Order: sequence, then C-alpha cells, then structure tokens
Amino acid sequence: MSKKNNQDKLLIFALGGVGEIGKNMYAIQYGSDIVIVDAGLKFPEEDMLGIDIVIPDISYLLENRDKVRGILVTHGHEDHIGGLPFVLKNLNVPVFGTKLTLGLIEGKLKEAGLLGETKRILINADSEVQLGSITATFFKTNHSIPDSLGVCLDTPEGRVVHTGDFKFDHTPVNGEFADLQRIAEIGSKGVLALLSDSTNAERPGFTPSESVVGHNLEEIFRKATQRVVVATFASNVHRIQQVVNAAAATRRKIAVVGRSMVNVVSIAGELGYLNIPEGMIIEPEEVNKMAADRVVILCTGSQGEPMSALTRMARSTHRKIDILPGDTVIIAATPIPGNERHVGRTVDELFRLGANVIYGPGSVSGVHVSGHGSQEELKLMLNLIRPKFFIPIHGEYRMLRLHAQLGEAVGIERENIFIIDNGDTVEFQNGAARKGSKVQAGNVLIDGLGVGDVGNIVLRDRKLLSQDGILVVVVTLSKQDGTILSGPDIISRGFVYVRESEGLLDEANRIVTSTLNKLMNDNVNEWASLKTNVKDALGRFLYEQTRRRPMILPIIMEV
Amino acid sequence: MSKKNNQDKLLIFALGGVGEIGKNMYAIQYGSDIVIVDAGLKFPEEDMLGIDIVIPDISYLLENRDKVRGILVTHGHEDHIGGLPFVLKNLNVPVFGTKLTLGLIEGKLKEAGLLGETKRILINADSEVQLGSITATFFKTNHSIPDSLGVCLDTPEGRVVHTGDFKFDHTPVNGEFADLQRIAEIGSKGVLALLSDSTNAERPGFTPSESVVGHNLEEIFRKATQRVVVATFASNVHRIQQVVNAAAATRRKIAVVGRSMVNVVSIAGELGYLNIPEGMIIEPEEVNKMAADRVVILCTGSQGEPMSALTRMARSTHRKIDILPGDTVIIAATPIPGNERHVGRTVDELFRLGANVIYGPGSVSGVHVSGHGSQEELKLMLNLIRPKFFIPIHGEYRMLRLHAQLGEAVGIERENIFIIDNGDTVEFQNGAARKGSKVQAGNVLIDGLGVGDVGNIVLRDRKLLSQDGILVVVVTLSKQDGTILSGPDIISRGFVYVRESEGLLDEANRIVTSTLNKLMNDNVNEWASLKTNVKDALGRFLYEQTRRRPMILPIIMEV
Repeated sequence: MSKKNNQDKLLIFALGGVGEIGKNMYAIQYGSDIVIVDAGLKFPEEDMLGIDIVIPDISYLLENRDKVRGILVTHGHEDHIGGLPFVLKNLNVPVFGTKLTLGLIEGKLKEAGLLGETKRILINADSEVQLGSITATFFKTNHSIPDSLGVCLDTPEGRVVHTGDFKFDHTPVNGEFADLQRIAEIGSKGVLALLSDSTNAERPGFTPSESVVGHNLEEIFRKATQRVVVATFASNVHRIQQVVNAAAATRRKIAVVGRSMVNVVSIAGELGYLNIPEGMIIEPEEVNKMAADRVVILCTGSQGEPMSALTRMARSTHRKIDILPGDTVIIAATPIPGNERHVGRTVDELFRLGANVIYGPGSVSGVHVSGHGSQEELKLMLNLIRPKFFIPIHGEYRMLRLHAQLGEAVGIERENIFIIDNGDTVEFQNGAARKGSKVQAGNVLIDGLGVGDVGNIVLRDRKLLSQDGILVVVVTLSKQDGTILSGPDIISRGFVYVRESEGLLDEANRIVTSTLNKLMNDNVNEWASLKTNVKDALGRFLYEQTRRRPMILPIIMEV
Repeated sequence: MSKKNNQDKLLIFALGGVGEIGKNMYAIQYGSDIVIVDAGLKFPEEDMLGIDIVIPDISYLLENRDKVRGILVTHGHEDHIGGLPFVLKNLNVPVFGTKLTLGLIEGKLKEAGLLGETKRILINADSEVQLGSITATFFKTNHSIPDSLGVCLDTPEGRVVHTGDFKFDHTPVNGEFADLQRIAEIGSKGVLALLSDSTNAERPGFTPSESVVGHNLEEIFRKATQRVVVATFASNVHRIQQVVNAAAATRRKIAVVGRSMVNVVSIAGELGYLNIPEGMIIEPEEVNKMAADRVVILCTGSQGEPMSALTRMARSTHRKIDILPGDTVIIAATPIPGNERHVGRTVDELFRLGANVIYGPGSVSGVHVSGHGSQEELKLMLNLIRPKFFIPIHGEYRMLRLHAQLGEAVGIERENIFIIDNGDTVEFQNGAARKGSKVQAGNVLIDGLGVGDVGNIVLRDRKLLSQDGILVVVVTLSKQDGTILSGPDIISRGFVYVRESEGLLDEANRIVTSTLNKLMNDNVNEWASLKTNVKDALGRFLYEQTRRRPMILPIIMEV
C-alpha cells in the first residue's frame, strides 16, 4: 500500500448503476489512480423508442485516461460486462475477471474485434492486484452465475468494499459458498466504506437457495409424461446444471436451443463450470426422433423476448421444435419489470397449444429464486463488514433508499449513508466524507451503429410520430411570381386509414390551398411564414375533425 | 318462464372479456332474445400506438338489434361500464344496474349526451327482470366496489349463472356480505352453465378481506408525524371509507384531489355509499393552512398515470399540493401489468422529495388487497353452484385455463368446460353443449374522435415511425422532358440528429440524384419505378451506414 499523501482524496463515484437497474459502473479514485468496477449495459426504457441498448457515459474516464488502472469485473452478467466493448474501444485498459467472467467477456470482445488489443487478466478469489496506490483483493459471493466476486480495495485513505451482486446461499448448487470467514475478516480490520447491492432491498426475509429449484425441477420432470421444455436465463449456469441433474435423474436427454443458451453451455462446459454426462446433449434435430418422455429442451426466452427460442415455439414459428399437446413448459424466471406482458402472452400461446405451463413468481411456481439477497442478507452483509460509511448501489432510487434504511437499522449513522446519483461523487479525506463535485455521467443511447447520435429531439419526434403519425404537405411554387405550380399534395402515414378518409384529406387539401392563396394575396411569401401558417391551419382543422395531432411537415419546392 | 321450443337453442358468447383483462362483454341468446352482461372498455396494449381506448366490436348485436332486450351491468368499474356510451349510441336498449352502478353510468352518459335517450332501470339484489323468454335474478357478491351483483338467468333451456367480478369477503367493510345462502339455493336448483370470474385464477389460497387494509391504514396514520397522502383507485369506495375511518380515528381532515376521485366521492357520498363525518372534507387549498399531522390527502394516481394527481405531486408540478420531507405517501394498489415502471418512477420521485413511501404488493405493504377471489374462492363458487357446464370468463387465456383446471379439480367433466375466445359461441340444446359457429367480435380502437378508423396498416406505420423515424425525399420533375427542376430535398424526422449528420444526408442526396439520373438515361420514367428505385437505393445506403431502417417516403412533383 502506498503512503498516504494528505493532499490526496479518495473519491467514490457512480457512472451508472444508480437510480436504475442495469448499466452498472462504479469507480474509485485515489490521487492519480482510478479503478473501475464493472461496465454494464441496460436495455432501453419504453420511452427510448427505437434504441437498442444504453451504456454509461464515460467522458470523465476519457478525460482522465492516463489515470485509469483497470476494470475489475465482478461477474459475467450483461448489466456488468455488456458495456465493455464500447468502453474498451475508447479506453484501452486491462480487464480483470475470474475464469467464467473472462470467458464470457472474450466472446464479446471477439465479436467487437477487440480481443487482440485488450489485456485480460485472470483472477480468482485469492488474487491480489496492485493498481497504482490501490490494492484490490476479492471474496467469493453467491449469485445467479458462478464465479462471482466481491471486491476489497485498500487505499491510503482506507478500505472500500464493493459487494458486486450477491446473495448468501447456504446450500449452493456448485458447493462454492460465499466466503463468510473472509468477509468477516475484511470487516474486522475496519472498513471505511461499503458499496452494497440493493436490487432486492424491497424484499423482506431471506432469498431461498438455488438448490430449492433443483428438487422441484426433478419432481416436475418425473411427473411429465411427454417432453419438458425449460426456459431460463442463459447465464444462470447453476440453473442449467440443475436442469442437467434433473434430466439425468429422469433419464432424459437435453437439446439446447437459442443462440445465447448454446453459447453459455459451450463456454461454461469448456471451462469446467458445467458437469454434463457424456452423451446427454442431443441436437435439436434429434428431438422429434426421440420418445417424448426422454427429452428436455433447454432454451432461451424466459422473458418473452420476441425473437427468442421459446417465443418462436409458442408462436409455432420455430424451425426445429414444435410444442405438442401434453408437453410441459417450465418458465424458470420472473419477468423483469416491463416484460410482464410479453411473458404473459407467451404463456397464453403455450397454453393454447395444449402445453402444461409452469410459470409465475418463484414462491408459487417453485422453479425460480432470485440471485440477489433480500433484506436479512443485506443486513447480514452490513453487519459482517460494519463500515463507517455506506453507499447503497445497484438499484432504482427507491431500493437505494430502503437499503439506506436497513443501514440505519443496523446502526450506521444516517449522515454516514450516501445515496448518490450517476455522476455524483463522495469525497473521503482524513476519515471524513462529503458529497463532492459532479462528474459527467448519464445514458449513451445506441441505435444501430450510432453511439450517442440519438438525443432528445430525435426521441421526441419518434414519440410524436408514434402517437398520431405524420402528414407531409408538398407544394411547388413559381420562383417568378410565387404562384402554385404543382400541389399541394398531402401524403400521410400512421394518421388515418387513407382509403376511408378521402373526404377528410380532400378538405385538408382545400384548407392548405386557400391558406397559401390568402397569404400570397397579402404578399406574404417568406417560406417560414408560409410553412407556419399551413401548419397551424391544417393542425387546427385536423384536431377539430379527429382530436389527433399528427406531425405536419410542410415542404415548399421552388421552380 | 316461457315454454321451451325444441327448435330453439341457448347460445352463450363472448364479445369481449376473454383472453384479455378488461373490455368485458358477454351475451346469452335464447331464440329471439339476447341479453347482454356488461359493456366494458380496456386500455390499449403497448403495440396499439396512439390509441386511447379499446371497446368490443358489437356488429353481431347491431345485426340482431331487434332481439337485444337489455344490458345487465354487474358493477360500476370501467372494464364493465366504459363501453356503454359507444354501445348505446348505436344500440338504444335499456340498461339495468344497482344504485351506485347506475350513478356512475349516468355520469358517463351525461358526458356523451346520451342520458336523455337511455332507459335506465334500477335494480337490487332482490329484483326480477323479464327479458323476453329469459328471466334475470341477482345475488350479492363482494368486490372492490360496492353494490356488485352476480346474475342468474333462467332460460327455457336451463339456468345460466354469471358471477360478475367477485371475492368472498367474510368481514366486508360495509357489512354487505356475499349472499352465500342465495348462491347455494341457486346451485341447489340445478345450474346448466356457470360463467365465473378468472382474474385471480393464478393465485393460490384465499384473497384477504378488505378490512385488513383498514387496520393497517389506521396504524400508519397514527404513526405519521406529518401529512398522509393516500392514492388508490377512485372507484374503490370501501377503501375510501377506510381512509375516512382512519382519518376520523386519528383526528385528521381529508382533502380529495384528482378528477375521478372527486367525482366518485361526490356520487358515492350523495347516494349514501360513503359515511363521511360532517366537516371532515376540506378543500385542497386549505391543506397548507392546517397542521401537517391533521391532514390526509386522498388522491388518484395509484397506477403512476402520467397526468394523475399523485404523479404531479411526485414531480412537483401539482398546482395545489407539494410533497414535503417527512410526509407519508401510501400507494394502496398494486400496479396493473404494464404499469410497473410508471409506479416505480413515481415512488422514486416521492422518495427523492423526502417522503416516506409505503408501496408494493399487498402482502408486503399491508395497504392493498385484491377485489377478485383466489383459487380457494373460485372453487367455493364452483361448489356452491355445481354447474353441469363451466365457462371461465374475465381473464387472460392462461387464467381461463387455470380456472378450467380448478373446475376439473372439483369434479366438472373436462368435456363440459369451454374456454372460449371473443366471438366464440357455446350452443346448448336438450342438455347437451357444443362449440357453435363464430360471431364477429374483436377490438374496436378509439383514437381521438375516430372509432375503428385506425387499423393494422396505420398501427404498423406508427410502429415503423417510432423505431427509426422517417425520411421524406421530394423532387420536382419537368413534365416536358422529365429532368429534375428542383430537389431532391431530403427532410428527416426521428432518424438522426440532423445537425450532426450533414455528411450522411448530403451523401444520401447524391445517391437519390444519381439514381434518378441513371433511370432517366435509361428512359425509365414511370413514377412507381422512380419511387421504388429511390426507396431501395436510399434504404440500402442508410442501413449500411447506420443499421437503421427509417420509413422512406419519396414524393415526385411535376411542373
């Protein structure tokens, strides 16, 4: 550990991951050393029309690029690794992760053509990494993907702990326990600040063990007289292992379907995180040749994603797998907020095909548990670490607030708890802490190849267009005398069904013509005035007639 | 009861209310008599861009208008009465409802200018109504609005029972119990077919009594040191009564905020469904003059609706009420699927203002219970009625299916259970039943003043426009020789931020020009070919450059 320089401060800040689920990215800075923890993406909110994904704004890191010592990645979920290709493209720094985490990251970097130029450093729970004046060590946690770590960062100003995503699973599927002893030891040596996962801060009690799901899966497999289809998150290797175990116990073979499921089963299998008996995996094409009660189909689509394997099966548009009456379909996941209706529709369609569908909250279906700790586990973490300062992370604002209340309940001083927004910093100096100045942070929207080129104006127009469509009004005027040479022509899209609205559109046309003629008689001929007047007159007329406000786009051509 | 004619059949059919929540409308027909039960609306699904509300298609009823004897309305919720103004405008038939139900309907009819011409007939649980050959009697149920009824329809072919929406509340707030004796008596005389509410068929157990909420509200009111804000469904008069009771017990006055809340409190109060102590209601303007611990604000917005009172308060844009640090805000409702994010954002904003927010599933928050019976209550209804045939109603397809499973579990023959879609009919004759021919049914979309004028093409265009925006390409050609006189001009909306994409749009312009010139050199001058070629060339270029597919609208003017 470097010597403490009394001029230097410790800064903790969020570039993403606060006030929203996903897009997790926190950083700590001591003097001229910045260490980043995670670089996730999130999926667009419903008002981000046409946007594909959202990543954190890393302007601050780019401005301080010579200080960034590396990115520590806690685990291999999209909301922690999905932003890496975009970040690394502009900021070539080393990436640290465990074997599975790096395996999943490498797939992404390969696709982005960044594998060669990115320094990847394999760590495990016993690693120690020197990042300038900051020393990073790690501790094992439980989560819905193996090989998840929490991070302990020793700085000259004191010790900072970042939990990553975690739960305490006392009967983990892979026998890898959260390292309670190590976490307690970290706490016993004095922790300046804890950053802890708030995702389930709304849930009372203790999150059940993943192994609960295994028993239930096996029972369902045993009772099923025909094929069993299991949809779950591709990255949930524990869940996949339990599907394998239940299949083995009931003498079924497994077909793996869906791009990301195939990808994860292959990576996790190669790296030794999945224990699959020889000959158990069959090709999707073989499913129809097998006895129905000897088959499990493991697939993507647990969120009702429109293009996923399960959704295609439910709509009878999957090329290889048909759902047959009597099949059992298990949706081993809960809908992420915003996906409820998609999942509901998929369930409806599966029922219509005659399947027996097992779905719903884990407490009812028995085939899903969360990967995040509930309130009792959050308090357990707080009490194991016993930090002086507490920064709840990962979650919507309300979850951070409830997590802060848990912190107070276990005895942390209210003024020592910081709920920060993206871009906020907390400054630590000589054992005291306060909110520091803001750094640039926010959402960078990605639409197709465009990174950040869709902003508020474009989104506002998309919103307007989506509500009542558009009317384009074109007219060609004479350069000499301003008379109308051609048009006005009105073309509409998304406004009314044109064939049944001829009268309305004819009348609209007359209104444009008379508006233009009147203006010309009054010798008004600046294009801006003509356009504004046409827009206003037409808008008024259409609103009166239809109570709709389509976008109106007047275009004047001059010849 | 009329004599049975062996040629006549009994038909039961759904015009709405199957395969979806809301828009409830069922009908039964015997010979030349049709009786309608309910006429609801639903709110648009997320792919119905720009649509305001959705009502059932009543073409079948209009074709058989001389047979329709009336509309029986089971209770006053929007998803049961909201379609009435649209239906009655085209089909002037008597409407039957209890006092509160008619009170709420009359408000709607007044707004629609239909109050004078609509025959409204007041009924109660003891009424008997003759509708041609069909005799309707009623029975009291519990639901999240007072004065809810189930319907018993005696026809020459046998007895049909329609439960309406219901739960069994053994400690109802208003002392009005579901009439178990009458329901049992109906069942004891032999029921041909039961139509029963499936909304909560996914939930195990028994729905808690509404009165559970009252105790919790009072405790929260008592502990609150400042103002209490309660948001709930305006129509939940029981809940409102409990807010009044809790306020009275804790010596607080109530300000009622939000149009529909003011409306319901006024109607329910006038009609005697709310018992409000003299002087308890204050004007919103008075709130700021009162001691904070003497005030309750009862408001709309429990679903996070963008324009509602609570949402405005949360965004600090409400004209009369500010949320102050330390205020307690109670959201006494669970989000309807699709509203989760809106509610979440409102909670976040309230927390940011420093409020203490009580929200979440009723089982956690204690301030909400459902108005629909869970699985044990559905089985209780099935066993009280013991029908020969069973048609689960009101719910998404999966709920109907699970309700059917409950029917089988209590001993109804599988082949005697009919899960029907909107437009499906079930035919009963001589004690046998089978699926009959379809009648026209479906969604009629209302957008502004337009009823049914927005169809698939318009919605598809709105969807396209919302994803990647639009490019309009205008060019003026010479009538004589087809040369370009003006343009091409390219105008885009919702595609890219124009100021930062000048290069892209210039290049697009060059591609249009060269495409047109090439075609003209080849003597291609039909407009259709010109447009198609421009669209293809431009679409290809833009997709290569941006991976986006904006709508491209080529317009050719001729001078």
